[in-house]
Amino acid sequence: MHPQFDQKTKKEAKEAGKLFATGLNVSPGAAYGMVALDADLAETWAKEEGKPVIMVRPETKPDDVHGMLAANGILTCRGGRTSHAALVARQFGKPAVVGVSEMKIDLNSRQIMVGDEIIIEGAVISIDGTAGEVYEGKLPTSVPDIKDQWLMKLLSWADEYRKLEVWANADYPSDAKRALSYGAQGLGLCRSEHMFFEANRIPIFQKMIMADLRIDRREALEALLPFQREDYAELFRVMKGLPVIIRLIDPPLHEFLPNHIDLLRDLADLKVKINHAKQMSEIDDLLKQIKEKEHVLKRVESLREENPMLGLRGVRLGILIPELTKMQVRAAFEAACIVTREGVKVTPKIMIPLTSHVNELKKQRELLEEEASAVMKEQNMEIAYKFGTMIELPRAALTADQIAEYSSFVSFGTNDLTQTTYGISRDDAESGFLIEYLESGILSENPFATIDPFGVGELMKIAITKGRKVKPDLECGICGEHGGDPKSIALCHKLGLNYVSCSPFRVPVARLAAAHAALEDGGI
Amino acid sequence: MHPQFDQKTKKEAKEAGKLFATGLNVSPGAAYGMVALDADLAETWAKEEGKPVIMVRPETKPDDVHGMLAANGILTCRGGRTSHAALVARQFGKPAVVGVSEMKIDLNSRQIMVGDEIIIEGAVISIDGTAGEVYEGKLPTSVPDIKDQWLMKLLSWADEYRKLEVWANADYPSDAKRALSYGAQGLGLCRSEHMFFEANRIPIFQKMIMADLRIDRREALEALLPFQREDYAELFRVMKGLPVIIRLIDPPLHEFLPNHIDLLRDLADLKVKINHAKQMSEIDDLLKQIKEKEHVLKRVESLREENPMLGLRGVRLGILIPELTKMQVRAAFEAACIVTREGVKVTPKIMIPLTSHVNELKKQRELLEEEASAVMKEQNMEIAYKFGTMIELPRAALTADQIAEYSSFVSFGTNDLTQTTYGISRDDAESGFLIEYLESGILSENPFATIDPFGVGELMKIAITKGRKVKPDLECGICGEHGGDPKSIALCHKLGLNYVSCSPFRVPVARLAAAHAALEDGGI
Repeated sequence: MHPQFDQKTKKEAKEAGKLFATGLNVSPGAAYGMVALDADLAETWAKEEGKPVIMVRPETKPDDVHGMLAANGILTCRGGRTSHAALVARQFGKPAVVGVSEMKIDLNSRQIMVGDEIIIEGAVISIDGTAGEVYEGKLPTSVPDIKDQWLMKLLSWADEYRKLEVWANADYPSDAKRALSYGAQGLGLCRSEHMFFEANRIPIFQKMIMADLRIDRREALEALLPFQREDYAELFRVMKGLPVIIRLIDPPLHEFLPNHIDLLRDLADLKVKINHAKQMSEIDDLLKQIKEKEHVLKRVESLREENPMLGLRGVRLGILIPELTKMQVRAAFEAACIVTREGVKVTPKIMIPLTSHVNELKKQRELLEEEASAVMKEQNMEIAYKFGTMIELPRAALTADQIAEYSSFVSFGTNDLTQTTYGISRDDAESGFLIEYLESGILSENPFATIDPFGVGELMKIAITKGRKVKPDLECGICGEHGGDPKSIALCHKLGLNYVSCSPFRVPVARLAAAHAALEDGGI
Repeated sequence: MHPQFDQKTKKEAKEAGKLFATGLNVSPGAAYGMVALDADLAETWAKEEGKPVIMVRPETKPDDVHGMLAANGILTCRGGRTSHAALVARQFGKPAVVGVSEMKIDLNSRQIMVGDEIIIEGAVISIDGTAGEVYEGKLPTSVPDIKDQWLMKLLSWADEYRKLEVWANADYPSDAKRALSYGAQGLGLCRSEHMFFEANRIPIFQKMIMADLRIDRREALEALLPFQREDYAELFRVMKGLPVIIRLIDPPLHEFLPNHIDLLRDLADLKVKINHAKQMSEIDDLLKQIKEKEHVLKRVESLREENPMLGLRGVRLGILIPELTKMQVRAAFEAACIVTREGVKVTPKIMIPLTSHVNELKKQRELLEEEASAVMKEQNMEIAYKFGTMIELPRAALTADQIAEYSSFVSFGTNDLTQTTYGISRDDAESGFLIEYLESGILSENPFATIDPFGVGELMKIAITKGRKVKPDLECGICGEHGGDPKSIALCHKLGLNYVSCSPFRVPVARLAAAHAALEDGGI
């Protein structure tokens, strides 16, 4: 359902030696544009000058998001399928190729290189996010028509047969609209923290992280509340009463701050510069910069973890910083009240990420109930709501009976569940040993693309069985990327899930795959 | 069974304001000595001058091991229960306190500080690794007597009742001897890579890692072979025919190289220095140093991973660098031949770490069989051996039926299994949110100290059931640190394990705990 390059055009370009590089195909679709090596330039060229842009970076960070949003496509040297670049790209439906390790970026001469091939900033390239290819020059794109009558007919037939509902993962109203137009029946995952990454909010969120005093932290959170409330309200309006699952903040806090190594390098550069500086004003300025960087560095180092994937993130943040959970809950309930008054029925579903022990849920649920009651009392309104959790750690799956006592729904986060079940860090492995494993046949399929039935599939089965034993109507869904993969959808059908949730672009395919699974199951 | 401080003496010291700091009690026992802030100094003072030394470092790295071996105790500012310092300390039975985050080390003025309290290098401190305490000055120590007749009697009674065998984790002949004297019935874990950390070997191993060409790598491995062979032979001699499980290399390769951040800081310092350098010879020397550091940095950066715990380690190394597995297997079989000729029966057991998929085992087993046959043919001798794997990832537990087809034994690595099942990085958590979790009652016990029965315990049960269904005589053991914890030993008894393996010092307690579990089970 994404814009595509014509196969014939690609073949010709390859024959003409225009294939510049290949990498990981992390976000499907095709795009062309001028190479821009930083986010500000990408934004200027695209927004002010109306030019098509491909943003090219060694890797991306939250500070780059405004450039990524402005660009038509994203290209990076480092990162895997769950890298920041890949997640943001998929989220916004931007074609992206990441992990092009052979590509070097020279920020002094403003050019990118693969071996002897050089492309200077401003030159046009084309990227194929479906195939993971980068071409020199402009290749024309075409968009398949979702309004195609035959396709619409086929999808409506499919809907008659399938048992699984198809929901979508969307963080922004525009994504939610697209998802609805493709037939999504709900939002299975709204990553509430993605809203913090936007240009006007990230400085406030950084202030929250840098706060030494509780009062400063509360001030920053209060400043974020109106943004978050309006984002939720708009999502509720778009979804017109369909289910919306809001997942509370998940990523480790250091992801919102500058990169540790970059800070160290910048500081080292500044210290060399100050040695050469002659004028007093220059020295003063450099000293000020050094002081600021050192302040940030200190916090970055205090947040530094050996294995952030297994560190302070998810519900652990909500336990350690209860004010953060409270702010997010308040925003959701205030938004629900606003939209209910506008005449739209809203039933917010609040989802806790990375639960490993039922006691985490108990604590967060108490907090939620208290804050929700406070809002409803202030607003003089009753809002029905649901409380649930992700199952993305083996222990959560193994103790789903305990968890079901405190959850009315669970959603399998199969990306993380695959990482912990297999003991594989996706970002590291997909540009490393996983390639060797797939090539040598140790693994027949990439477990991050298709659910491994013996590991993750087995844990899902255990969880569903244990959970529904305690609560027969426990709603079970999946919001990992596997939710859009046909083979994985077949497994989800077999396991008796209620829905799959995937990125908006994959919704039509998921509808077909769900019908296919139901038909196979029925022996047709 | 470790040297201890008298409770009364400690109380007096506390009352006299001599308690300097507290940290994590990662390796039990008591020790005193002069503060030495680097490994070379620690070694010089201890070995050449015969003085008692406590080595104090921000954290330890392989380069520090010679100093740690020479010291009576170890004290660090950073790190958790599975940090390098903690592992080495336990391994050598050195008392250690780590993660003393309030302590600062000033290498310029050569002193350590906690708040306003300052202790200069060379001054005497006492550390209590059992309690995690650091005192100023010398506190006298005493050693409990294992030869105590009453204790011996008690242990021999215990041995009559217990069903579980008690083995020990030991990498060096001296540890193995101690384990035997405490009643160990085998070695459940010999971490073959620990031998590479010694001062005369680490440069060769680093050469292996830095090698760009296969021939250089092979050369380095050939240089390591005689060391490894002699280490194994000596272990076999000490253990006199009792089982010895050799685990092939496990840690990520970057652990053998200098720290990334340290390299960056050193390079930055060198670059500032070169700005101030005046003499040509000094500049040349600095340039040479910079070049060398940059070369190492390049490799360190290419090995860098976001989450090394879930990265390129364990069997993944053996798959990507088959020469490494071959060298280790050859060393083990050559050693077995030598010791067999000396008249000691040897049945080497080779264990593969971090298996997640049965195909990894198949591949490594083929390699092993080929190399083992080659050695036996060369030596004109038949050596009986066993092949097995660790179960330290959830997927290995869930697919134990597949794994049992290629393993004659499995050993639960419950440290790592706890990390992936819970999604908790131990190093990060134990000085972070885990403390809050324990204090607020979300967790009633530290899952790294006592096996969590609902998560890891459940996976062990699944693995044993599935594995023995395929292979009823599958030998099942545990070699995580839980193997020395009485509550966990009771669970191991209930699950029907064949043995628990723990650090030598914990063997007597494990014998008692195993008997206790058997007696409880029998309803006595």
